[in-house]
Amino acid sequence: MDLKLDCEHLKGFIKEKDWISLAPRVQKAHEQLHQRNGKGHEFTGWLDLPERISDSFLDELTKLGEEVRTQSDCLVSIGIGGSYIGIRASLEFLVDQQKLPVYYAGHNLSSTYYHELLKELENKRVTVVVISKSGTTTEPALGFRIIKNFMEKKYSREELKKRIICVTDEKKGALRQIVQKEGYRAYSIPDDVGGRFSILTPVGLVPLAIAGLDIRGLVNGARQAQRDFSKMDIDQNISYRYAAARFFLYQMYRKIEILSSFDQRMNFVAEWWKQLFGESEGKEGKGIYPASANFTADLHSLGQYIQEGERHLFETFLMAESSGPQVLIPADKENLDNFNAVAGKDFDFVNKQAYKATSMAHFEGDVPNMTISFPRFDASSLGQLYYFFEKAVAITGYLLDVNPFDQPGVEAYKIKMFKLLGIAR
Amino acid sequence: MDLKLDCEHLKGFIKEKDWISLAPRVQKAHEQLHQRNGKGHEFTGWLDLPERISDSFLDELTKLGEEVRTQSDCLVSIGIGGSYIGIRASLEFLVDQQKLPVYYAGHNLSSTYYHELLKELENKRVTVVVISKSGTTTEPALGFRIIKNFMEKKYSREELKKRIICVTDEKKGALRQIVQKEGYRAYSIPDDVGGRFSILTPVGLVPLAIAGLDIRGLVNGARQAQRDFSKMDIDQNISYRYAAARFFLYQMYRKIEILSSFDQRMNFVAEWWKQLFGESEGKEGKGIYPASANFTADLHSLGQYIQEGERHLFETFLMAESSGPQVLIPADKENLDNFNAVAGKDFDFVNKQAYKATSMAHFEGDVPNMTISFPRFDASSLGQLYYFFEKAVAITGYLLDVNPFDQPGVEAYKIKMFKLLGIAR
Repeated sequence: MDLKLDCEHLKGFIKEKDWISLAPRVQKAHEQLHQRNGKGHEFTGWLDLPERISDSFLDELTKLGEEVRTQSDCLVSIGIGGSYIGIRASLEFLVDQQKLPVYYAGHNLSSTYYHELLKELENKRVTVVVISKSGTTTEPALGFRIIKNFMEKKYSREELKKRIICVTDEKKGALRQIVQKEGYRAYSIPDDVGGRFSILTPVGLVPLAIAGLDIRGLVNGARQAQRDFSKMDIDQNISYRYAAARFFLYQMYRKIEILSSFDQRMNFVAEWWKQLFGESEGKEGKGIYPASANFTADLHSLGQYIQEGERHLFETFLMAESSGPQVLIPADKENLDNFNAVAGKDFDFVNKQAYKATSMAHFEGDVPNMTISFPRFDASSLGQLYYFFEKAVAITGYLLDVNPFDQPGVEAYKIKMFKLLGIAR
Repeated sequence: MDLKLDCEHLKGFIKEKDWISLAPRVQKAHEQLHQRNGKGHEFTGWLDLPERISDSFLDELTKLGEEVRTQSDCLVSIGIGGSYIGIRASLEFLVDQQKLPVYYAGHNLSSTYYHELLKELENKRVTVVVISKSGTTTEPALGFRIIKNFMEKKYSREELKKRIICVTDEKKGALRQIVQKEGYRAYSIPDDVGGRFSILTPVGLVPLAIAGLDIRGLVNGARQAQRDFSKMDIDQNISYRYAAARFFLYQMYRKIEILSSFDQRMNFVAEWWKQLFGESEGKEGKGIYPASANFTADLHSLGQYIQEGERHLFETFLMAESSGPQVLIPADKENLDNFNAVAGKDFDFVNKQAYKATSMAHFEGDVPNMTISFPRFDASSLGQLYYFFEKAVAITGYLLDVNPFDQPGVEAYKIKMFKLLGIAR
């Protein structure tokens, strides 16, 4: 198994008898999930999605990517929530692989943002991917209006058929109607996979293939994880062990989880994780608040609070076993800063010691913590991480007795906003 | 007064009698602060700093900036915590004013980060500002080693005297010794202003002046705020009213504060705010956990949790009254997405309605919230916001009966790390 879970710093917080008492509850959650009879079971298409993705489809997308890159200086990816965060998370994690610059749109309502974006795009050859199941979500719909307008001034109708690619519902919705009318290329979003679980559907795969990422590696990683995390037993399934631990800690008044990393390439994976866990658990007055930290920078901002503040939190470290090119610390004749002891060492070596020191210090400061480690910053590791967390959140959702696959609360602000805007819905 | 605080959505959570009961406690905190006899009073130099900054010093820094920009394609700003976050927050908030690209260093220990940074700098004319009170904080010390090494290969010793600028202790410490030995230009960090309060000392002003920001406007804004928020009465001082409200909410089990904005230019102001509040309050097992959200993007990730999850949070919106250049929403003949009702409107108009809808929806979802508004994205507004929050956190610190000006917990990981690295301290 490539992923590892270190629970050393849960000692004293979760005892052997607690693990034993958690096991039957996890077993029940596992059965609900795999027998597809738990809450929201109609949205569990992600569960066996990795093995259902055909290699020929991956070939098709890889070819699409090659073709689009020859005609483009950049890609504009229009989407919000699950149609934005996972794409950006993948691009930042796999930044080394990226072959085409990607701009985001449809994920905010800021005039200034669009003003700058339109200036950026002005003299570039542009291809657009617009991702929306309904086509009527405000942010991507308005974002698509402005980008479509820009594209229509720049390109002929025929050219637009090559340059606007839609990812939407197979049959219904405003965006599907636009596809049918304009003849744009289109890919379908399955009905049984919700937005926050959609990174391995065309929602994620289409823009990532265009950007030039190793989508086959990503899917293969998820396939491996589908096998690795299929067992019911928390002693053999670290995805479930992670789920059980966080559920237990939540019962013990640990109501905030900080996902901490020591490499900025994980910043947006943390954002993806926040949506996955926050939206899946945060309902019926329940759920752990998902927060994140980027160390060592944040040790000099949030570090004080984590070490000595209110004890209502726990921490999960996300660590790469190996990180990338070496950069050695130079020796200094004078040694005024007293760091010659690490001269000749790689920065990453010091970073690793900082991680070890931090996880120990926080543990001793009464912050239980776990570490999830993955081999390296490659597509396989990322695919495994995505599936690991998806499986875990389904289990904690069932442990909390909520539907981990809906998001009824997202409508509240929309209803009020449509009223303020005078839009009938 | 330019800044405004809207407490409409605290109704039912904080009653008139609660405000009345809070007043004498705030009064006591105010007296401790201004009579400089409360905890940590030796670090309250920030309190009257705005009026103590001389205009001639601002002129000097403005000239320094002009001079450095003629010799440079970019600035490398080396620092961590208070010597990084406020600088970046200012540059992102005032992005329109920036005249020179700024790269950051010394704020992490990632080999990959330095590998990429050195590649970026290779063919550029570089000036460096290194900011460290002691010169022995690991991240900036090692960052300075690698950048200094790069600069020494690129430039003569004489040239380095123009291209390396140090901001450090006036007399002591490793970086001051390096200044004395090498003859670099240097500016001093006052002893009575802690890192997280240091944005208006040379820590912030030197790199911001070099980047070309309106530092006079920034200081003038802070001067105005120093006057505006000098009164003891919570009915006349919104900085204190904000402090009192959050203290009260904390007593009512609201243990997370989310600073929410609707413009990405505020993302790093939120990071600055997290350090200010987290590090000032988070000690002795106390303090509100500082979190942030960037809407509307995060309405499609954290929105569900905020609306319906565990009710242990409250929210503070940070809103600009006017935002910038207009971008109008295009009309569409077909209107398949049904948004022609807002065709011809500015994106920012829709964004404002989204804010109103969100603050109402969260309030109705049992999340008390406040809104701090400022006129526009200019230096004066930012200077006012910085001082507003500094004053508020001093008061909540005293209300919580902690020392808001120390950060003893930051040492814990360092001690362990030095041991792991074999460095004597």
